[in-house]
Amino acid sequence: MRDQARPGEAGILARLLSHLPPGGPGGAASIEVGPGDDAAVLSLPSSRMVITTDSMVEGYDFLTHATTPAWIGHKTAVQNMADVAAMGARPLALVSAVSTPEDTPVEWFEQVTIGLTRRAARDGAQLVGGDLGRADQCTLTITAVGALEHGEEPVLRSGARPGDVIAIGAPLLGRSAAGLTGVLSDRVEMDPTGVVLVDPGLDPELAEELREMVGWHNAPDPDLSLGWTTGRTAHAMMDLSDGLVRDGSRIAAASGVLVDLASDLLAPDVDALRPVADCLGADAWEWVLHGGEEHAMLAAFGEGEVPEGFRPIGRVLSRAEQGHSGYGDSDGPRVLLDGEPIAGAGFDHFD
Amino acid sequence: MRDQARPGEAGILARLLSHLPPGGPGGAASIEVGPGDDAAVLSLPSSRMVITTDSMVEGYDFLTHATTPAWIGHKTAVQNMADVAAMGARPLALVSAVSTPEDTPVEWFEQVTIGLTRRAARDGAQLVGGDLGRADQCTLTITAVGALEHGEEPVLRSGARPGDVIAIGAPLLGRSAAGLTGVLSDRVEMDPTGVVLVDPGLDPELAEELREMVGWHNAPDPDLSLGWTTGRTAHAMMDLSDGLVRDGSRIAAASGVLVDLASDLLAPDVDALRPVADCLGADAWEWVLHGGEEHAMLAAFGEGEVPEGFRPIGRVLSRAEQGHSGYGDSDGPRVLLDGEPIAGAGFDHFD
Repeated sequence: MRDQARPGEAGILARLLSHLPPGGPGGAASIEVGPGDDAAVLSLPSSRMVITTDSMVEGYDFLTHATTPAWIGHKTAVQNMADVAAMGARPLALVSAVSTPEDTPVEWFEQVTIGLTRRAARDGAQLVGGDLGRADQCTLTITAVGALEHGEEPVLRSGARPGDVIAIGAPLLGRSAAGLTGVLSDRVEMDPTGVVLVDPGLDPELAEELREMVGWHNAPDPDLSLGWTTGRTAHAMMDLSDGLVRDGSRIAAASGVLVDLASDLLAPDVDALRPVADCLGADAWEWVLHGGEEHAMLAAFGEGEVPEGFRPIGRVLSRAEQGHSGYGDSDGPRVLLDGEPIAGAGFDHFD
Repeated sequence: MRDQARPGEAGILARLLSHLPPGGPGGAASIEVGPGDDAAVLSLPSSRMVITTDSMVEGYDFLTHATTPAWIGHKTAVQNMADVAAMGARPLALVSAVSTPEDTPVEWFEQVTIGLTRRAARDGAQLVGGDLGRADQCTLTITAVGALEHGEEPVLRSGARPGDVIAIGAPLLGRSAAGLTGVLSDRVEMDPTGVVLVDPGLDPELAEELREMVGWHNAPDPDLSLGWTTGRTAHAMMDLSDGLVRDGSRIAAASGVLVDLASDLLAPDVDALRPVADCLGADAWEWVLHGGEEHAMLAAFGEGEVPEGFRPIGRVLSRAEQGHSGYGDSDGPRVLLDGEPIAGAGFDHFD
């Protein structure tokens, strides 16, 4: 017998569909067939499609007691759209596969969908389809697509050249890592409505900063449009998902170069985070160098060509330029700080 | 310290990438940027994209002891490509998000990828990107995309008209359900290499049939190309994923009609399954009418227009045509057998 509170797959879908576009033009892609058939049909602005997929899993990528369904939807949208943006393309459409325990309230699905669709809409992208299924843990997998117009080249990780400037499309790094440290500490709690409660013994200004960082961790909100606007002039670009050192190493490896971060250019980030770091007994440099889930655009530009929205944080060096033997080899460091190796390695799901 | 058997995310990815296309033309879509960057870039044959997503979750959509990783990959590819095919479009590219427990052997990922890419390649589709992450249960989410050429209309669920013939693009229905019953019975076991061991007390011919049905359940292999070839003349089409009655109801609801299945046209399916059904103490009619995961094309064609690859299994009736009150209402039956209501309702993840 069916529980009154359990509307079944069709009932959940009906409720979610009220938050989705009905089909027809809207957003940057025109929806010929929206949700409800076997698949969605979209008219893209060009036939050159950009596509990426990414999952968030309860207990690994989010903690139910420390975030809200709307933030989970928002964050998964950002993660995926950032990957499209990092190719120099604008995200246009998303599909979403959601697997949950049987007793998950319909409001959970609805809030995830609201968080996802609202964040996507801000960049003109629309949720056009999805799948519901069962699992022991809540799992949300988004696929995002965008398009490159005829003649537009994708911005790859492999184009960085010695002499380039490494720049980041964010005013402040390390907030997501700081927020995560906060979430895992005993100074922060979340009430069931998503209000972040900070240890009342803290200085009010510090408490407010910590609250903001937890919010940023749960729902990072970088300017993704930099990817398909000023970032298109980059020689190489990716989104900062696993930390400056690990992601910088990816650009360095793909481009056959070294990335040399400049401590004086990152010092303002560290200074901004230090009061909260001290309060939590953490290292602000660790957050700035190794903190992931920022999803800001990390790019290499020609000297003197760093565009609006980006700020320099280092340089690209040739391998030969660097005297120390082993730098840039498969096992040697590819990312340096003021010319010296950096401890730590960022985040690896299977390490 | 890293275990020798645990190659880390980068190591697993490197091993998987050896099974993926290197970029460049190949398959029906041309890959401008393959796996390894933030997102893949594809040249589709047109800018009208078809997209769908679907997950398989351990314990709900497959049982680890009763299938193999290669079959899981195959089945998830089929599920997703069937949804694209059911719109009348050819699947071109897939992305795959895989979440697993930390101790999942790299061979598991590799076998899933092999199963997926081989089945996809048979229809000209390519795996172009993916995501790896952690979860308590193995979860595989595929997104499939295809394209409709300029002027090609998608085949929707909503176009069935009274007088149409309901047809299925499969020689035999119910095999997947029969295989599932076998898997859940004590007459079938799987050895770790994926060999299906059937109760040695069974008649050898029956044992062979049961083995084939288990294989079909784990790796259904319908002719998906019917969707983008002869099936394009259908008035309505979908893939058979949740059973003839439930999926037929969807076409009926979307089209505002009734579907009347003909027992004499389904009798050969039932007869073919009956020996195995009797052996397992099951009802072959239940398998044929309610068994899901066949992924064959279910379509409505004009009278006398059922094309090659399809066979008639019923008719489309207008609601008014049917004397019984309540038929086709939101709560009334939309699918009949020889004009009478059918017990049971197919599969609902949240029922």
